[in-house]
Amino acid sequence: MNLEAPYLVFVGDANDTLAAKTGQGVVDWRPEAVVGQLRLPGCRADLGVTDMSIQQAVEAGARTFLIGVVNPGGVLPEQWQGIIVDALAAGLDVASGLHTALDSIPAIFEAVRRSGRRLLEARRPIGPFPVASGRKRTGKRLLTVGTDCSVGKKYAALAIERELTVRNVAADFRATGQTGILIVGSGIPIDAVVADFAAGAAETLSPDNDPDHWDVVEGQGSLFHPSFAGVSLALLHGTQPDAFVVCHEPTRTTMRNVDAPMPGIDAVIEETIALGRLTNPAVRCVGIALNTSEVDAGRARRIMGQARRRFGVPVCDPVRHGVEAIVDEMLS
Amino acid sequence: MNLEAPYLVFVGDANDTLAAKTGQGVVDWRPEAVVGQLRLPGCRADLGVTDMSIQQAVEAGARTFLIGVVNPGGVLPEQWQGIIVDALAAGLDVASGLHTALDSIPAIFEAVRRSGRRLLEARRPIGPFPVASGRKRTGKRLLTVGTDCSVGKKYAALAIERELTVRNVAADFRATGQTGILIVGSGIPIDAVVADFAAGAAETLSPDNDPDHWDVVEGQGSLFHPSFAGVSLALLHGTQPDAFVVCHEPTRTTMRNVDAPMPGIDAVIEETIALGRLTNPAVRCVGIALNTSEVDAGRARRIMGQARRRFGVPVCDPVRHGVEAIVDEMLS
Repeated sequence: MNLEAPYLVFVGDANDTLAAKTGQGVVDWRPEAVVGQLRLPGCRADLGVTDMSIQQAVEAGARTFLIGVVNPGGVLPEQWQGIIVDALAAGLDVASGLHTALDSIPAIFEAVRRSGRRLLEARRPIGPFPVASGRKRTGKRLLTVGTDCSVGKKYAALAIERELTVRNVAADFRATGQTGILIVGSGIPIDAVVADFAAGAAETLSPDNDPDHWDVVEGQGSLFHPSFAGVSLALLHGTQPDAFVVCHEPTRTTMRNVDAPMPGIDAVIEETIALGRLTNPAVRCVGIALNTSEVDAGRARRIMGQARRRFGVPVCDPVRHGVEAIVDEMLS
Repeated sequence: MNLEAPYLVFVGDANDTLAAKTGQGVVDWRPEAVVGQLRLPGCRADLGVTDMSIQQAVEAGARTFLIGVVNPGGVLPEQWQGIIVDALAAGLDVASGLHTALDSIPAIFEAVRRSGRRLLEARRPIGPFPVASGRKRTGKRLLTVGTDCSVGKKYAALAIERELTVRNVAADFRATGQTGILIVGSGIPIDAVVADFAAGAAETLSPDNDPDHWDVVEGQGSLFHPSFAGVSLALLHGTQPDAFVVCHEPTRTTMRNVDAPMPGIDAVIEETIALGRLTNPAVRCVGIALNTSEVDAGRARRIMGQARRRFGVPVCDPVRHGVEAIVDEMLS
């Protein structure tokens, strides 16, 4: 996949900022590649970049219409079809992280044919993948895991990879979801792989490497989320991490999109070690990444101090304070 | 799916009886529907039915060529293409449980077009499926789980459903794998569903039902198998079983196709309860199904007695002795 920058990021009628996390991720980690956002009436998300129409974006030099909004299940709402057709007709490529195959929609297929532009679908895995072997690979791996979906696993992994690079430690961020793939331009959308091969795809994603090289693998879902725990477990087993970081949003009380209580950080540490041992007996927790975006700086400091005392590992907010202490611990 | 009987069961060049478990399952549970088997040179499996060629099978009334052999990954070996083309040309439908889509192979696609016969692919899920909701459904469910792949989960479930039916308890066997689907003619091949929707497919498979109705769901893989644990967990969460039965083959020392030790029955009970609680806090173990086909009757009795004393639940070999004690416990 080779996205042409700059992008017009489509936010649609996103209900909240979490729904627009794909777009937000691209704006946060590749701001130089974003020319503006396109929002529909009723949209409650704002990426903090200039609002513009397709025509204005084209005049500003945009090359790709990037769908920056997700919904549970990743299905394309009917009301977006016309906008995608317009974007193609205006000469833009369309990049998407939805489950829906855009070229399965006749109007879009036809618009691609007429415009000669491209559909870049980050959620369509390029297989085939093998059945996982469970064989121990060379090199080192860190996986970010979560108490829930959308708690900062991707940001934590990106921040850790950046900090390793600053320290001249060989490292690669390995994207496992559409946003990560749209940010770095490669990866495997694990949740879109056929279940039988999901762990095998995770093995493929972080192959044998130099002994001191770190793959920093973006986690998915949560072992405690009733919709996605199977995906999280396949990713844990296939990644066979030496180290993991638990990501958590301290103000959330119920899990996203389901009626289930949030698990404790202690339960996530325990279960990740219990299950992760199957493919890497040395797996250990090297830190906790708290997403404190919902609380003020003082409360964030108190919450982080409490967690540090309680769990005895480094605690960071990757966005607010960086991940130096976690990286110290993973390299120790 | 609507298979026309009788079948010619294709065993290919299966290395052992386990590789031919699809064919064996059909022979064991629908013997009246099997006219014979077709084996290639070097085949080490024998289903115990008459060997015949495609032509002999057609003369004996066969309507369907049923691929009764699987290999890791479910890929179609090239040397089978010609035989499948011959079967279609001879006027047989072809039923398959392989991952490979048969109509993606030009020679087979062409043979279907010319013969007018059908391809019936049990491993191709008919979606789309929803993301799992985790919502508690009405009716009761039993899931068979395993210490490993190929330890008797399907047979245990089929035997339990048969015993419930004998006792006039409303029950349905719910197939989750290609063999089960080929035996009963319906079901969802969970391992072929896109990972994000695997738990949702499991929810779809055993919908709301009468309070006293039992869905007896065929388990897949093992929570302790590095290749497939994610599939097993999605199935556990989506099924939300009230009761589970642990299936085990007592002579096996390493897990199938990987270099990993077999987990203990106690570990499987513990982990199934720990993880199953997420969608059904009342989940409990109602028995152990031992596959004692590798030992003599005396040793089987001793092993079963030991397991009964150690775990305090009914222990049966579904094939050797039936599942009465397990069904007593699940209904108690």
